[in-house]
This record gives sequence, C-alpha cells and structure tokens, in this order.
Amino acid sequence: MIKDLLQTKQKLINDRLSCLLKADIREHETLYASMNYSLLAGGKRIRPFLFLTILDTLGVDSSAYLDAACALECVHTYSLIHDDLPAMDNDDYRRGRLTNHKVYGAGMATQAGDGLLTAAFQILAEEKNIAAPIRVELISILARAAGPKGMVGGQAHDMEAEGKQLDLKELKILDACKTGCLLSAPVSMACAVAEVPLKERLLLENFASHLGLLFQITDDLLDEKGNLEDMGKMPGQDEKDHKSTFVTILGAEKAEMYAEQEASLAKEALAKLPFDSTILYELVDLILHRKK
Amino acid sequence: MIKDLLQTKQKLINDRLSCLLKADIREHETLYASMNYSLLAGGKRIRPFLFLTILDTLGVDSSAYLDAACALECVHTYSLIHDDLPAMDNDDYRRGRLTNHKVYGAGMATQAGDGLLTAAFQILAEEKNIAAPIRVELISILARAAGPKGMVGGQAHDMEAEGKQLDLKELKILDACKTGCLLSAPVSMACAVAEVPLKERLLLENFASHLGLLFQITDDLLDEKGNLEDMGKMPGQDEKDHKSTFVTILGAEKAEMYAEQEASLAKEALAKLPFDSTILYELVDLILHRKK
Repeated sequence: MIKDLLQTKQKLINDRLSCLLKADIREHETLYASMNYSLLAGGKRIRPFLFLTILDTLGVDSSAYLDAACALECVHTYSLIHDDLPAMDNDDYRRGRLTNHKVYGAGMATQAGDGLLTAAFQILAEEKNIAAPIRVELISILARAAGPKGMVGGQAHDMEAEGKQLDLKELKILDACKTGCLLSAPVSMACAVAEVPLKERLLLENFASHLGLLFQITDDLLDEKGNLEDMGKMPGQDEKDHKSTFVTILGAEKAEMYAEQEASLAKEALAKLPFDSTILYELVDLILHRKK
Repeated sequence: MIKDLLQTKQKLINDRLSCLLKADIREHETLYASMNYSLLAGGKRIRPFLFLTILDTLGVDSSAYLDAACALECVHTYSLIHDDLPAMDNDDYRRGRLTNHKVYGAGMATQAGDGLLTAAFQILAEEKNIAAPIRVELISILARAAGPKGMVGGQAHDMEAEGKQLDLKELKILDACKTGCLLSAPVSMACAVAEVPLKERLLLENFASHLGLLFQITDDLLDEKGNLEDMGKMPGQDEKDHKSTFVTILGAEKAEMYAEQEASLAKEALAKLPFDSTILYELVDLILHRKK
C-alpha cells in the first residue's frame, strides 16, 4: 500500500535529514538552526520518496542511497526558502509554520537557502556508496534540473510573468521548469544509479514529466480550494499574486479533467515498462487525489 | 612578470566566461542577462587565476582546465550578488557599476545568484577533460569551501556580528570562512587535478591560507583608504555597517604590519616547495600592494 510505504520512507528520510546538517562551531549555529528549521519542517518528501521507490522498482536496494535522496530534499527546501522571501513571493506560512525569513530574517534565510543548495552537491560528491562516474552523472542531472535552464529558470520566468495573462502553452513551459524538472530529477537519478537501458529510462522520464504536470495542476487546484490546516500554507496566493495557473486559465472543472488526463498518460508510460510498477500507479492516484 | 601573466589569463578567463552561459529560450533571457551582467563585469579573476597558475607551476597544461577555473568565478560572483542584496549588505556599487539588484531587482538578483552557484557545479560535473574520481573531488572541495562550514557560514557569521565588537581571534575565524575558504579552494583543486603528494599539497594549502588572510587584510585597508574609482565600489562600507575589521581592531598601521607578516609567511611556505614558484611570490607582492 502506497500510504504505508510513503510513511515508512518518510520516517527513514526524516531520521536521516535530522542528523545530516550539524554546526561545527558556535559561530555557525544560527545558520544551521535556520537551515534545519525548514529542512525538518515535515513536508511530503515526494522527491526523495520517488528516487528511493524507483530504485526499489528497478530492483536496487534503496537503503544504500538515503543520502542521495536527502540531497534532493535539500535542494527542494532551499527553493522553498528563497521562493518565500520578501523579494520573491513574500509568503508568511509554509508547511504549517512561519516561513524561514519570518523567523530568521531575509538575510539569514537567503544564506540558509544558499547553504542547503551547496550542501546538496557536497553530499552527492561524497557519497562513497556510488561509483565516481555515476556520482558525477547524478550531480549533472541535479544541477541541470535545479539550475538556470530548469527550476531557477522557471522561478525567474514565474516572477516576470506576475500580472501577465499566460496562455496554456506558456504556462506549461513555465511549470515544466519550475516544478517539473525537480520532479523528473529523482527518476533520472534512479535510472543512472540502476544503469537502466535507454529505452526504459525514456519511458520512466516520460512518466515523470506527466507526474510533474499532474503535481502542478493539483497544486493549482489546492491553491483554489484547499485550506491552511490541510496544506500548511495560505490558499489563494496565486490569485493574490496575479499568477496564471491551470485554474485561472482553464477553470477548476477543466483543470480537474486535465489532471485526470495527465494521470492516465503517466500510467500509460508505466504500462510499457517490463517491471512491476504497482506502487508507481498508486503514487499517481495519490497525487491526483491529494488534499495537501 | 605577474602583471603580464595576469592579463593574459584574465583575457582567457573573460573570453570563456562570455560564452559560458547562454539562454535556451526567450523566457529565461532576463535571468541570463542578470547572471551575465555580474559575471562579465570585469573583476580581478583572482580565484580562477590562482587555479590556473598553480596548475602551471605543477607542470600541468592549464589550458585544458579553463571551464573548471570559470566554475570558481561563477561561485565568487554568486556570493557577491547575494552579499550585496538589500537583505544583506545593501550595497549600490560593485566592480564600478550598479549592483545586480539595483538593475534587475532583488528577486531576480537572488535567482541570478542561485543560477550561478548551480551552474558552477554543473560545469564541474560535466568537465570531460577530468577523470570522474577527480571531478567528484573538485566538487567536494568547492562545495565545502562555499558551503555552510565555509563561505556561507562566514557570511552568516558576518551578518550576525554586525554592530558587535569582535576580537582578533573571532575576526580571523570569520574571515577564514568568508574569504579564506574560496581562496584556498583553487589551490586544493589544482593539487587534486595534478595529484600532487600530500606533503606538497599541505605546503600549498598553508601558502593559500596566508594568502587568504593577506587578501582580507588588504581588503580592509582598501575599505579604509581606497577610492571608488580604483575599487569600483564605495569605500567606508565597513564603518557604515559597523563591521569589525583588521583596521578597526588593530588600526591601519598595525594592520599593514600584519599584512606584511602574512605575506612573509606565504613566501616561507613557497620556499619549501620543490618547484619554481617565482610567479606565486610575485602574486603575494601584488596582493600586498594592491590598490583595488
């Protein structure tokens, strides 16, 4: 069952994250407190979960790759901290608590994000369980996904697009970078570790791109109709920020249909794979019906 | 002659930097303009120069390692952009022109910094001239130097120390992280590429740590007595920000003596090396007497 597996993996991930980043000297304690404040604030851990679960699906013992999984969460957390900054979305709540800069100030929050991003690459570079040629491939995948042609590019585009009316095609470009890249990265990284043949890697990456789009559409739907208690952040932010979303462009009903279509396409990609990917089908449904 | 060599290498570095980061799609053009605005604003290029020059000194043809050198400058430039942000030092001028956020806004400047940092790791990970085991070592060295126990830790400490009176020991800890780590990284990276024996690597790292301290002391002296035209940034910022520096703690005269002492110690380390390191002696004097 996906929910049990998710809980089990979340615990593994959270336990590892909680001892990953420790200050060396007194002078760095506030920085580490700020990084850990956001890193250990819960969260769904979808990216590390996806990485570990794809490894399991591919017949690789995922328990040896927990640190690489945590590197993904470090990058995701850094992106949330910077995205919430006053100079960016200026949000007050995230994962059910005050945003990083509300507690530590915008300067320290900027540094905490910088620290988490840099630490992620250090963790991957020093992951002795993985052969060096695979390690550099993982770093390359993650840096491309998170960098200026990926997530950072999407964030910058998102900022520039505020107040403008995007069409569906433009929105899909934006979201493919902003959200899609860092959801595809765990899948590509697992394929690199397992050294799967190109044909299957392309199918899994196709699955990941539909999953990423599905994730973003349900995110937009939750912003429209979710609540603070379930989501841990304020709903209605997209409207407040005059952002184009699947809901503002298509309306809620058509956005829901679109989400269902993406879920079907993700499952179609899975159906072509020669492994038992039951758990990934269940993950698609979990995201399709998520409340947070 | 160091000045000719510096100019030659600066040209190589600047030429390579100018074609390193190109936007792929129209939607990312502002982000790339913002990254390149700061990356191509001149600057001394000390870190990539040091990396290439140590390689030359170690008998390695440095021309094959220009991209790795540029990765160092990407990290340095990101740190300047974030350091100048309104939430940090709130500076208006850098390298003789308006700071990034003054031109592109604080949100885009934050993203530009994030993009440069991430791109640096991608460049290193994809540097095919270097064997994978060395590449992961370079990434590990750079991430440690730039990360929360290195430069980011120093920046955070610096921010917290504003308005407080540090003693000399505390200031040295702060500066070793904030400036020293990213000046030592090129030396350690060159040693990794050249696979030099541990004994010589330790000597070169000892040289680098004195050079880093020398660089910081002369930086503090320039902030006290330099001018906007030479430096490209406003002098007197440390006093404005109530920062402890070698000049505020020791006074200008003793700080100058301290700089000379660090220069001597750097040269002593060089004297023990079994290579011709004439150019590194000259670099020490160049930094000792620098006007910008």
